[in-house]
Amino acid sequence: MLYESLDIKNGRLTLDGRDLTELAEKYGTPLYVMSERTIRKKCRAYKTALDGIACPDSSAVYASKACSFKAVYKIINEEGLGADVVSPGEIYTAYKAGFPMEKAYFQGNNKTDGDIEFAIKCGVGYFVCDNFEEIDALDEIAAKMNVKQKILLRVTPGIDPHTYDEVATGKVDSKFGVAVETGQALEAAKLALSKKNLDLKGFHCHVGSMVFDSDVFKRAAAVMLGFIKDVKEHTGCEAEILDLGGGYGVKYYEGQGELDIPSNIRELSREIENICQRLGISVPSLRLEPGRSIVADSGVTLYTVGSVKKITGYKNYVSIDGGMTDNPRYALYESKYTVLTANKADKKADFPADLVGRCCESGDIVQPGCLFPDDIGRGDTVAVLTTGAYNYSMASNYNRIGRPAVVVIKEDGSEYIAVERESLDDLIRLDR
Amino acid sequence: MLYESLDIKNGRLTLDGRDLTELAEKYGTPLYVMSERTIRKKCRAYKTALDGIACPDSSAVYASKACSFKAVYKIINEEGLGADVVSPGEIYTAYKAGFPMEKAYFQGNNKTDGDIEFAIKCGVGYFVCDNFEEIDALDEIAAKMNVKQKILLRVTPGIDPHTYDEVATGKVDSKFGVAVETGQALEAAKLALSKKNLDLKGFHCHVGSMVFDSDVFKRAAAVMLGFIKDVKEHTGCEAEILDLGGGYGVKYYEGQGELDIPSNIRELSREIENICQRLGISVPSLRLEPGRSIVADSGVTLYTVGSVKKITGYKNYVSIDGGMTDNPRYALYESKYTVLTANKADKKADFPADLVGRCCESGDIVQPGCLFPDDIGRGDTVAVLTTGAYNYSMASNYNRIGRPAVVVIKEDGSEYIAVERESLDDLIRLDR
Repeated sequence: MLYESLDIKNGRLTLDGRDLTELAEKYGTPLYVMSERTIRKKCRAYKTALDGIACPDSSAVYASKACSFKAVYKIINEEGLGADVVSPGEIYTAYKAGFPMEKAYFQGNNKTDGDIEFAIKCGVGYFVCDNFEEIDALDEIAAKMNVKQKILLRVTPGIDPHTYDEVATGKVDSKFGVAVETGQALEAAKLALSKKNLDLKGFHCHVGSMVFDSDVFKRAAAVMLGFIKDVKEHTGCEAEILDLGGGYGVKYYEGQGELDIPSNIRELSREIENICQRLGISVPSLRLEPGRSIVADSGVTLYTVGSVKKITGYKNYVSIDGGMTDNPRYALYESKYTVLTANKADKKADFPADLVGRCCESGDIVQPGCLFPDDIGRGDTVAVLTTGAYNYSMASNYNRIGRPAVVVIKEDGSEYIAVERESLDDLIRLDR
Repeated sequence: MLYESLDIKNGRLTLDGRDLTELAEKYGTPLYVMSERTIRKKCRAYKTALDGIACPDSSAVYASKACSFKAVYKIINEEGLGADVVSPGEIYTAYKAGFPMEKAYFQGNNKTDGDIEFAIKCGVGYFVCDNFEEIDALDEIAAKMNVKQKILLRVTPGIDPHTYDEVATGKVDSKFGVAVETGQALEAAKLALSKKNLDLKGFHCHVGSMVFDSDVFKRAAAVMLGFIKDVKEHTGCEAEILDLGGGYGVKYYEGQGELDIPSNIRELSREIENICQRLGISVPSLRLEPGRSIVADSGVTLYTVGSVKKITGYKNYVSIDGGMTDNPRYALYESKYTVLTANKADKKADFPADLVGRCCESGDIVQPGCLFPDDIGRGDTVAVLTTGAYNYSMASNYNRIGRPAVVVIKEDGSEYIAVERESLDDLIRLDR
């Protein structure tokens, strides 16, 4: 199986030992199922790796945009991680889940005055300031609220995206941050340091998503440490924190590359130590922001088949009761997924078909070119793996389809509803 | 201006005479604003055109997936249109809005048993049956509920998508319907006619979206009428209704093609008459299913600018307080939009920049290559035109961002909130 959390018992697919077809029957479909054991395992791997490196007081900060609801923040907190939050909604969710807000990092390229005030009220630990306007606005609002706000400054290290295709957010031409290359990052650092109500603790960058090559982070670290030295020389201020953002890749299908994240972190730390020694600066505290790599492979989405079309001479289609509304990633990025038939998991799968959703839109494809058992038909349960990240969080009500419930399997094997299914009345609640 | 509903007064953009900057201040941003006058005008154009053709009792059926909330169904009903519904959610919304459900057409490639039962309970007029499994399931459930259910059968006419790129849903290789070419459509018609609790009233097809060439509908009609003749010959049953689906295009930007829809409908009807005469079949009642062309250009989305980035030697970015969460169409389809600065509408716009959203995702672009006034900055109001279709309906809570309110301007110039803004508490309501 793709992950060790998966198995087959009595011909049916299991997750952490639980029969997924049974869960589909109990809670209805579509259904998001998540394994708490997997989430915690991933958290612990980051924590152990980061506790053991030379960069002092380093920690992982969960990028909660990957999957944000109250139960997730509770788990993350119990495992000792911080949390990235990107909106008042994520801040409020974490806050209401009892998350210690001093461990929250408020990201984003556009924070409104209202957002800033709300985040300060909630006691958010760090603002990751993105731009000049935000520095001005934050200082002004912090002054009014009589707060000295800790910040990191988001800079774009200008890692060449042509060398690393998966790297898209750290290049100079980005909506995020201020660029080192153009001198704007140094200007922004000076501006932040000139503000009485801001406390510049360090710098943040994010090089991209689905990174499988640790070299990307090393290259980013080199640019960032050079910048830290520059800022020190120009202002006398030496950054305490280096936040290299997120982006470790996740295995979505057999044959895809894999990465030993803990060993990569240790390698990265040694590189940071070496560069710091060379540059004559102190070794900063390291932050990493895993999102996908914490939750993606904890999740499975279950669907019920409604129709199987065999179009002679063309193609076959298996239609399910969900689709781009609960998982828009194929529609958006042509993302690859592994698809299994949960209630016929031990049957030979050699019937090729596209797995398509129920939306009235031809682009509503979950995954093309899947293989199913020959006798797949109305009522069968299909499982799409690795849907713990960017599925629930990106879901919509397109076609006025309610979003599925999220059921979480605890370490003891029992399960609970973490997010309830949207009812028909939920859908029209705000209609006047 | 792109539409006659738009104007500039005191340097500010107006819709139906209302100052959009004022509405943004009053209701906050992001904000969907819709013009009831435009929606009604579009409805009337369809109604007038369809009332005047030879196909008896013809009518337009609003494809409500384009924009579905209670107020829309009320307007559509007042204008005498039917409604396409594609899910229990859309059925429930229409029902709760007092829409006469006998004028509702239940579409979709995957109706669950639960959906079928619910739709019959609500008194949905027509099921547009998509596949064999649905025919079986619907007959069985209708029998249990002691109902004879009117249906149309969705067939794929096999219009060559290579000739018309915009045509994607009517080809043989489609998740929708049963194909004429493979003989499966005739088989499905026979199956439907064999069912005691189904009343096959006619046939439905949908050739695609954003159609600007009336020839596409004529070609579809030719195939469909040939099929109607075939079915008549094989079964003795002559279809009363020919539903050609939707897809007329909408003007999103200057220089884009335009189509005189009423004259196209008249042309199409004449073609249908001629073909029927040639084939020796009765002229059927015609249905058309406009969605986008009813609501798209009624809508404007208003945003507030948070940051303007000028990256020397690269590109400029204008960040707003919404984005792919309230309008995912650029992220999904690279859709083109016209973008104006509402509070500086009479200023020369020659500052080039990408209009980007607030999501922590580099793909969160609303529109690249826009032009803004030189002095655009934090606090300015940006208007994205033609957002009445597939914006509110496709919106998500990605990044836990609440969905905007929808404000509708009535014909008398006053406005009302049709859908309330999602609050922070709304976002966590279903979290346990």
